[in-house]
Amino acid sequence: MNTASFFTPVQTGLQEVEALLRSQSDGAHPDLGAALEHLLASCGKRIRPALGLLTGQMLGAPHDKLVTLAASVEMLHTATLVHDDLIDGALLRRGMPTLNARWSPAATVLTGDYMFARAAKLAAEADTQPLTKLFAVTLATIVNGELTQLFAARGVISRENYTRRIYAKTASLFEMSTRAAAMVSPVGEEAIEAMRQYGYHLGMAFQIVDDILDFTGNQEAVGKPLGSDLLQGLVTLPALYYIEAHPDDPNVRLLAEGRYGDRERIERLVEAIRSSEAVAGSLEEAKGFVQKALDWLAGMPAGEEKQALEDLARYTVTRKI
Amino acid sequence: MNTASFFTPVQTGLQEVEALLRSQSDGAHPDLGAALEHLLASCGKRIRPALGLLTGQMLGAPHDKLVTLAASVEMLHTATLVHDDLIDGALLRRGMPTLNARWSPAATVLTGDYMFARAAKLAAEADTQPLTKLFAVTLATIVNGELTQLFAARGVISRENYTRRIYAKTASLFEMSTRAAAMVSPVGEEAIEAMRQYGYHLGMAFQIVDDILDFTGNQEAVGKPLGSDLLQGLVTLPALYYIEAHPDDPNVRLLAEGRYGDRERIERLVEAIRSSEAVAGSLEEAKGFVQKALDWLAGMPAGEEKQALEDLARYTVTRKI
Repeated sequence: MNTASFFTPVQTGLQEVEALLRSQSDGAHPDLGAALEHLLASCGKRIRPALGLLTGQMLGAPHDKLVTLAASVEMLHTATLVHDDLIDGALLRRGMPTLNARWSPAATVLTGDYMFARAAKLAAEADTQPLTKLFAVTLATIVNGELTQLFAARGVISRENYTRRIYAKTASLFEMSTRAAAMVSPVGEEAIEAMRQYGYHLGMAFQIVDDILDFTGNQEAVGKPLGSDLLQGLVTLPALYYIEAHPDDPNVRLLAEGRYGDRERIERLVEAIRSSEAVAGSLEEAKGFVQKALDWLAGMPAGEEKQALEDLARYTVTRKI
Repeated sequence: MNTASFFTPVQTGLQEVEALLRSQSDGAHPDLGAALEHLLASCGKRIRPALGLLTGQMLGAPHDKLVTLAASVEMLHTATLVHDDLIDGALLRRGMPTLNARWSPAATVLTGDYMFARAAKLAAEADTQPLTKLFAVTLATIVNGELTQLFAARGVISRENYTRRIYAKTASLFEMSTRAAAMVSPVGEEAIEAMRQYGYHLGMAFQIVDDILDFTGNQEAVGKPLGSDLLQGLVTLPALYYIEAHPDDPNVRLLAEGRYGDRERIERLVEAIRSSEAVAGSLEEAKGFVQKALDWLAGMPAGEEKQALEDLARYTVTRKI
């Protein structure tokens, strides 16, 4: 299945989002404009704007507001990636050089800040106070999650901790996309809550699958070595499953002791996790989230948008595995 | 004159701003909370919140909105300082260790981001859409100014360039403080524009005086070597005056050639500027801005707030010189 098929009902809207994103460097320093251009060209599949556009179109939201809102969400997402890549020292993202690979840390920090500012401006233009507040709260959630991860003792992690982390990292912005789109639609609180739940569950599934792909994915497509999370001391769901099932594996004990420096043994652990039942267990969990997303979607008005949101949810757990 | 006297009419409001600022780490990671506490304890005289509170109180704005707004402005200001200090590699600000002197760059970037998010949330809580948009536009102005400064060829600078830079760095947020406070007051467009102009002109004067103090100030109070701007290749108003008056000074030509590495000769240039007519010329310019600020203030309702705003404007050009 080609991802493009979910996007068909919102093709026009996505093009407008693209144009709006690119207009955000108007009046800025030319080098900043070039950086934004580069970032917007390299960053992703526009799944967050598509989610907002599909939700709002399904629920009869005014088109212009939806486009502005979707651009705001994508700008916010890209801004967090810019700072993330700087923090991780990542040189590539999706096969393209990151900003920090080409620019100084100073310029990278400020470019991210500029994008936050533009995202906030777009959010304020899209609508009213509750939405701008939601925007700000979501940004605080994401950043607090990153800081918590930064401070956390590596390796030692509970399931609860993992759930909080992937909520902050991914599900919070998915949730915001669908919830905000419902908020600007002519619908009641119940529909807003249902679409918030859809976005939340989809986001949780999406990140779990990302974490599985870190073990099982096509190394070249992902652009990182297999098990890169674990090699950096980041314990995700497949590792949690494996740790629970094999507490006496000496390499598992290595993790608990925080000895990530022993690359060879961590690589052996990655291989063990990859060929264990942990992958299937994690995938089942992701499928559970997708099912809940579909359940929350069930009461929405039928049409091509709803169909696309269903397909998108199902695709989440089948992509690249 | 003690700065505290301007603050007397808004003492209660400032205490509430303080409490609101400190509550912004609720729910955040404890280390982040400690960092915010440290930053808020070390950061400044609260001149921006005082400006907003005085303006709004003078014009009859609802007290709670003013407090939230003032906290938002101060949080935004502190966030930009956190990223600034990281970029400059500064280890001290106002005699206290900066965040980046104690934390990793990663944690510093994220703490600044978190503060942006909280500032945006406060702005959204304070009022309506136009205000949130103003907030976002001001942040974009500040950040674009920093980027422009970062990219600019050092040394070579026009007056127009200098004016734009100090607007972005300082006057934009002063302007926002007074303008936003007027926006939430029961007054018309004319009063909003007058208070915007007051804030703008005060901010311009304030930064020019800061730039003078970099040459003439008490080195220990400022916490930086005399002429630190020029030593870093940053040409400010006193240097511009000197360059215009002494184009053939060989040390001036050094500047034009971008040779900042020659510390001894730049130090001699700093000394020459410090004892030249450039200081008085710059101060006259700052006084011109203060006069314009006072002119715009003239039509406002009389009372202790207006008196404080007048005193504050006059103090701007007499402090520490």
